[in-house]
Amino acid sequence: MYLLRVNMSNQTYQVTDMPEKYKNLAGRALTSNFIADEVPPLCHPLGQDNKLIFSAGFVTGTSAPTAARISVGGKSPLTKGIKEANAGSSWGADLAVMNIGGLVIEGYPKGKEKFWGLNITWDGKPKVEFFDATEYTQKKLSEIFPPMYEKYGDRISVCSVGSAAEYGYCNSGIVFNDQAKRPSRYAGRGGLGAVMAAKGVKFILLDRQGAPGVEIANKPLFNEGRKKMIDALTTHAITKPKGGLNTYGTAILINIMNEAGGLPTNNFHSGRFEGAPHIAGEAIFETNKVRKGKEIYNHACSPGCIIQCSNTVYTEGGEEITSCLEYESVWSLGVNIGIQDLDDLAMLNHLCNEYGLDTIETGTTLGVAMEAGLMKFGDSKKAIELVHETGKGTPLGRILGAGTETAGRVLGVTQVPVVKGQSIPAYEPRAVKGIGITYATSTMGADHTAGYTIAPEILGVMGKQDPLSVEGKAALSRAFQATTAFIDSSGHCLFIAFAVLDIASGYQGMIDETNGILGTNWTAEDVVKYGSAILKVERKFNEAAGISKEADRLPDFMTRDPLPPHNQVFDVSEEILDAVYGEM
Amino acid sequence: MYLLRVNMSNQTYQVTDMPEKYKNLAGRALTSNFIADEVPPLCHPLGQDNKLIFSAGFVTGTSAPTAARISVGGKSPLTKGIKEANAGSSWGADLAVMNIGGLVIEGYPKGKEKFWGLNITWDGKPKVEFFDATEYTQKKLSEIFPPMYEKYGDRISVCSVGSAAEYGYCNSGIVFNDQAKRPSRYAGRGGLGAVMAAKGVKFILLDRQGAPGVEIANKPLFNEGRKKMIDALTTHAITKPKGGLNTYGTAILINIMNEAGGLPTNNFHSGRFEGAPHIAGEAIFETNKVRKGKEIYNHACSPGCIIQCSNTVYTEGGEEITSCLEYESVWSLGVNIGIQDLDDLAMLNHLCNEYGLDTIETGTTLGVAMEAGLMKFGDSKKAIELVHETGKGTPLGRILGAGTETAGRVLGVTQVPVVKGQSIPAYEPRAVKGIGITYATSTMGADHTAGYTIAPEILGVMGKQDPLSVEGKAALSRAFQATTAFIDSSGHCLFIAFAVLDIASGYQGMIDETNGILGTNWTAEDVVKYGSAILKVERKFNEAAGISKEADRLPDFMTRDPLPPHNQVFDVSEEILDAVYGEM
Repeated sequence: MYLLRVNMSNQTYQVTDMPEKYKNLAGRALTSNFIADEVPPLCHPLGQDNKLIFSAGFVTGTSAPTAARISVGGKSPLTKGIKEANAGSSWGADLAVMNIGGLVIEGYPKGKEKFWGLNITWDGKPKVEFFDATEYTQKKLSEIFPPMYEKYGDRISVCSVGSAAEYGYCNSGIVFNDQAKRPSRYAGRGGLGAVMAAKGVKFILLDRQGAPGVEIANKPLFNEGRKKMIDALTTHAITKPKGGLNTYGTAILINIMNEAGGLPTNNFHSGRFEGAPHIAGEAIFETNKVRKGKEIYNHACSPGCIIQCSNTVYTEGGEEITSCLEYESVWSLGVNIGIQDLDDLAMLNHLCNEYGLDTIETGTTLGVAMEAGLMKFGDSKKAIELVHETGKGTPLGRILGAGTETAGRVLGVTQVPVVKGQSIPAYEPRAVKGIGITYATSTMGADHTAGYTIAPEILGVMGKQDPLSVEGKAALSRAFQATTAFIDSSGHCLFIAFAVLDIASGYQGMIDETNGILGTNWTAEDVVKYGSAILKVERKFNEAAGISKEADRLPDFMTRDPLPPHNQVFDVSEEILDAVYGEM
Repeated sequence: MYLLRVNMSNQTYQVTDMPEKYKNLAGRALTSNFIADEVPPLCHPLGQDNKLIFSAGFVTGTSAPTAARISVGGKSPLTKGIKEANAGSSWGADLAVMNIGGLVIEGYPKGKEKFWGLNITWDGKPKVEFFDATEYTQKKLSEIFPPMYEKYGDRISVCSVGSAAEYGYCNSGIVFNDQAKRPSRYAGRGGLGAVMAAKGVKFILLDRQGAPGVEIANKPLFNEGRKKMIDALTTHAITKPKGGLNTYGTAILINIMNEAGGLPTNNFHSGRFEGAPHIAGEAIFETNKVRKGKEIYNHACSPGCIIQCSNTVYTEGGEEITSCLEYESVWSLGVNIGIQDLDDLAMLNHLCNEYGLDTIETGTTLGVAMEAGLMKFGDSKKAIELVHETGKGTPLGRILGAGTETAGRVLGVTQVPVVKGQSIPAYEPRAVKGIGITYATSTMGADHTAGYTIAPEILGVMGKQDPLSVEGKAALSRAFQATTAFIDSSGHCLFIAFAVLDIASGYQGMIDETNGILGTNWTAEDVVKYGSAILKVERKFNEAAGISKEADRLPDFMTRDPLPPHNQVFDVSEEILDAVYGEM
């Protein structure tokens, strides 16, 4: 594997063998270790000393199923701590196939006016050409992806940032193409888009033609693991073809969480939303059936996925509004701001994709804007207007683009749902205690994907646990956080967890695949150790960046104000929160 | 002494004897201990759980000279840590004379539309009347002070907040009347104005008529101390009548700091400003002489002051533009944004006083706005326009009112001169190392008044020390921070330090005055112990609020980019910074 360093101070690059110390590190394991090694923890995230690193997982680029994740790492402008955000895209698979174990963007162009594109091709080893991409700035993302394919060929993969990143917004993601060449797959959280833009990079194109592919140390073992994984994914009710996710998408969770009283509504003032059924996954499926005249099952976001959970939302006339409308986005841009009109919600999602905004952070910011009186809860027309403002970089738009915490500060709001500067996603900690522990303690700021205890607490994966109980939840969150850090390094989509946590042979398949590729002999115990080691590196970086254990807390209103319908507060003690990492 | 608690949840109040544990605590010592005792460190600063406390110093309200300081404490919206800000005003003296050792504002009105005034009178003990002050909101401060005097009598003292506070700005101060009844004396730093406004309080009026005055345990000792203090102040070249401060005001420092290459210019890109002589204290004095046809010496901000450093700036026609135009404001609203027109500068100062903004934070925020390209350095008309926007609460105004760090974040700027969220004032750390150590380590965020090592490093008070040298500066800053915490508790203006650090009998006078009032036997050693104890309480609160030692750092650009003309970086090691409090 190669380490490819691109220096944006002078638009040069360097290809070296992957350093020995990074052997057996990929995905989140590599991005977090690299950032911890090379980025000064107290540097300005948009300044010259921050770095951005892309790395696909161990198994990405192979025939392993549901495994085309690309991790992006850097110091986050949103949390001011370490950040790994990942997305599913052919881009990750292509990077792996081109044997680029890590792609680093470092340095800082002197002038800020010019933006660059990087065209990375294979010529015996990776090769980088720089092109002037300034003409593609200040445009909607859907307008600038097609010219890339026209100019550089249909087989490329495309990574870019939108105008949100160009403005330096803390709420700006990095976008990758989906299988239909849409700019729709986001490493969305933490504002890494602004880091990429601050380095003057607008595009990173990958052309894998001629590349050698991923080396596999033990093919029989890999194939065995792959088969176990495929069996698990095609068997489990949630992940199988025409199963829960393939039929209703991730938004299948809307009705489930609403029923559980844990769906944060109107900026976290309730755990239940009357309008939820109108925008739930089932409603999307049924609406599509009517509008397209047939049942439409979901599609894959990236090559080799079995789960295929990505939906498309259509107008009454059958035209595409947006793809994909995830559970988190239905919640943030719908439930959390009182919107129950599916078309307007889909339009909000579409605009986030056009401007390069994280949908979660956008919706929670709009929630705070509503709290401030800028608009009424449920006013979808005004919400659309505000997202346009954000995309245009007006003063009001800049406030909203700066993320939920900063918007709350600027607007003088006290009910601001964030941890470590990153907004809380679609599961209410007062109604689901384990996920609250993950939000509080994750190195990433509030992040459901960092330790998804919803699986046992709500979905009964691995056996059902009472969501309102605190007992055993610190250990549960710790175990989930560690396992997740491994999965984020494997290149698998986190959604394999639904299947492999219930089906032991699937879990073993994940380990076999990894051992097959790396030639290692890791056990299930090693998986947790590997994940824990990543978390410790991240935690150490955060501490050096000034993020102490006192940041492992939910906002004060959640420990003070009871949430309907359960009328509970978040009653997890500080001792329990401190023990999550203290005992790791 | 009484503790007066005003509960704004239901507009009630309670007068009790000062609790035993707060005996011998006043000013900053009381405000910081009280906040540490009663405010949850992780609460939202503008939420229901924060409290605001006012306390005058030990000697305030007596005949001790230059001693009418009023301390205000709370959790700061700007730094998210503990905050004490103090001002000189008859208001502080009146509070002491009314035997109110601490005035606490707690609770939170349900509705946010209504603002209240508190009219505190003496009726055997302190008595509070609440009146509806909503009609006085969204107005300039100079328009709302006169009606208070008309309605409640000429002898009252007035405390208020401006529209900046009503908007919840992190940059909003609490204002007190000066001797000419102007709204001009600010507890400016840290956004405590927004805390007061969040509690629905617009005015706090004090009518001292009939009040008993401050009890003095040992009058002969007090009088002896007072005499020593008066001797020192009337002798020292800086503090004596028609001395440096009385003639040229605090802005006498402009030419001195410019000469030293330590006057931060154009958002900290240089340590020297060509236009400095046009706006220095000497220029103000000479301009006034021409415009008023005579030499005008400065006036006192508060009763009983010998130093009398407050100036007034007049138009060509002899009308008042503003009072007072301090060194820090000449710097922040002039030098730091490239403005050298005295009239425009005075107008900027005037507007800050009208809207209730801290001049330092305003100027540094404008510097960052210039860095972002919102205006050119030196464009005073545009700067005036932006301060008006701030006062009007437009989206752009809100960005600027949120403070320098937040504005930098929203505008995508990387050169942002702040520590712990509070902006760096008028001495460049790269040219004066000791003050940089104070900025980095102070519990207050960047604050020159927290440990004013400029006295020895630039002015030669206590003997001259090389400003560019790091040696011995940690110990120097530590000693200054501890002594300052004591002075901030005594009620004396910090400017006594010029005299009493050079004249030993003056220093003893300060101790004698305190012992005389309290009946204690404190020594010079006890002064440092007392101050250190305050700092430790503040530090502990900050740690519990998530402010770790990694926050004791200057922004990255100051350790990386050399500053002209000395072309030095801030080269104080992290070990030295950590030792400031580590060895306390």
